[in-house]
Amino acid sequence: MYPSIPDVETGEVTRLIMQQRAKATRAAVIEGAASIFEEVGYGNASLSDVTERASVTKGALYFHFKSKENLALAVIAEQHNIVRVAGEKIAAAGLPALQTMIAMCRTFGQQLLDEPIVRAGIRLTFEASAFNADVKGPYSDWVATMEMLTHQAQLEGDVRPDVVAADFARYLVASFTGVQMVSNVLTERRDVLKRIDDMWRFMMPAIAPVRPQDSGTP
Amino acid sequence: MYPSIPDVETGEVTRLIMQQRAKATRAAVIEGAASIFEEVGYGNASLSDVTERASVTKGALYFHFKSKENLALAVIAEQHNIVRVAGEKIAAAGLPALQTMIAMCRTFGQQLLDEPIVRAGIRLTFEASAFNADVKGPYSDWVATMEMLTHQAQLEGDVRPDVVAADFARYLVASFTGVQMVSNVLTERRDVLKRIDDMWRFMMPAIAPVRPQDSGTP
Repeated sequence: MYPSIPDVETGEVTRLIMQQRAKATRAAVIEGAASIFEEVGYGNASLSDVTERASVTKGALYFHFKSKENLALAVIAEQHNIVRVAGEKIAAAGLPALQTMIAMCRTFGQQLLDEPIVRAGIRLTFEASAFNADVKGPYSDWVATMEMLTHQAQLEGDVRPDVVAADFARYLVASFTGVQMVSNVLTERRDVLKRIDDMWRFMMPAIAPVRPQDSGTP
Repeated sequence: MYPSIPDVETGEVTRLIMQQRAKATRAAVIEGAASIFEEVGYGNASLSDVTERASVTKGALYFHFKSKENLALAVIAEQHNIVRVAGEKIAAAGLPALQTMIAMCRTFGQQLLDEPIVRAGIRLTFEASAFNADVKGPYSDWVATMEMLTHQAQLEGDVRPDVVAADFARYLVASFTGVQMVSNVLTERRDVLKRIDDMWRFMMPAIAPVRPQDSGTP
């Protein structure tokens, strides 16, 4: 007989169930926090609002997050993750790189309309200086992704070879950031998808390859 | 004899001196507040830090500003005023409209490096959602100014007639906002002037008039 085995298994099952529960609680807290941060901003959010919205105890919240700042950073991380996963799905579709870049921007725009965690994460990213959070990471990530895609688009002949990929990627990310931010300030994002399309229209001529009929030597 | 006249004059002089002093105190408070807000952000700034930095009493501060929010809005208004006055000076130089627009962006960029009130005002504008302030005004102002200049640049032949001035103006303001914001996050604005020049380089081909040799029918 191996009396210790069922014990170990029961212990293992219990551990897995508890892990599962802890994970679910953490997700519920992040979701509740996102909804509160999105509504009232970092400064006006209180942790007791979050526990109430998430239907968890204060103890459960503090088990996962030491402070409001900690919780805000987790919402930003989760937002970045959601947008990145969507971006990876688009990349996996195997479209040409330039189309991939455009689709990523449009999808991010749509998520700003539909996904509470994305809306909250972006609001917190803009407010980050108010709580001294370092938000370099997500920006650097996007610049790196867009630089890689710009290089690929150059190989595919959709972006002129003399465009400096690093400069264009940085400009695209900065421009997108401003476009959605100003759309939020002026129209509560009602026109964000149109403004993202405008952005691409205003950028495209700078990167589009020179066609033979444009060169002046037909 | 007219005994009342010297009295009235003395009263008038006293009133003017007091007005002058109140103005100086208000300016000192705004300057002190800007320096604190720029350093620590809205959330971490305290009014007693501001009175200390500005060397004024609490009473003097509260005479002019009812709350921290009130004071932050005054810093934003003063920032917008400083940038607008610089813009008007550029406009008065009578350059072609497109050059005026480029010069306004560069000057704003330089002020973000040099002027504490401008730096503080922009930080507060981004943090505005954290204290529920409405910052539509400055953005709308800039979009209107840039739209007017784009129209003028079209009349002067420097911007293609088929560019929708309102859409381009909105894009320019949004793009500029993102460019300086991301420059701040990633490099503490060390590269802001280069990024503003890059922005214009990446926008120009979309608005530049088609020269005869580009049209394919030379």
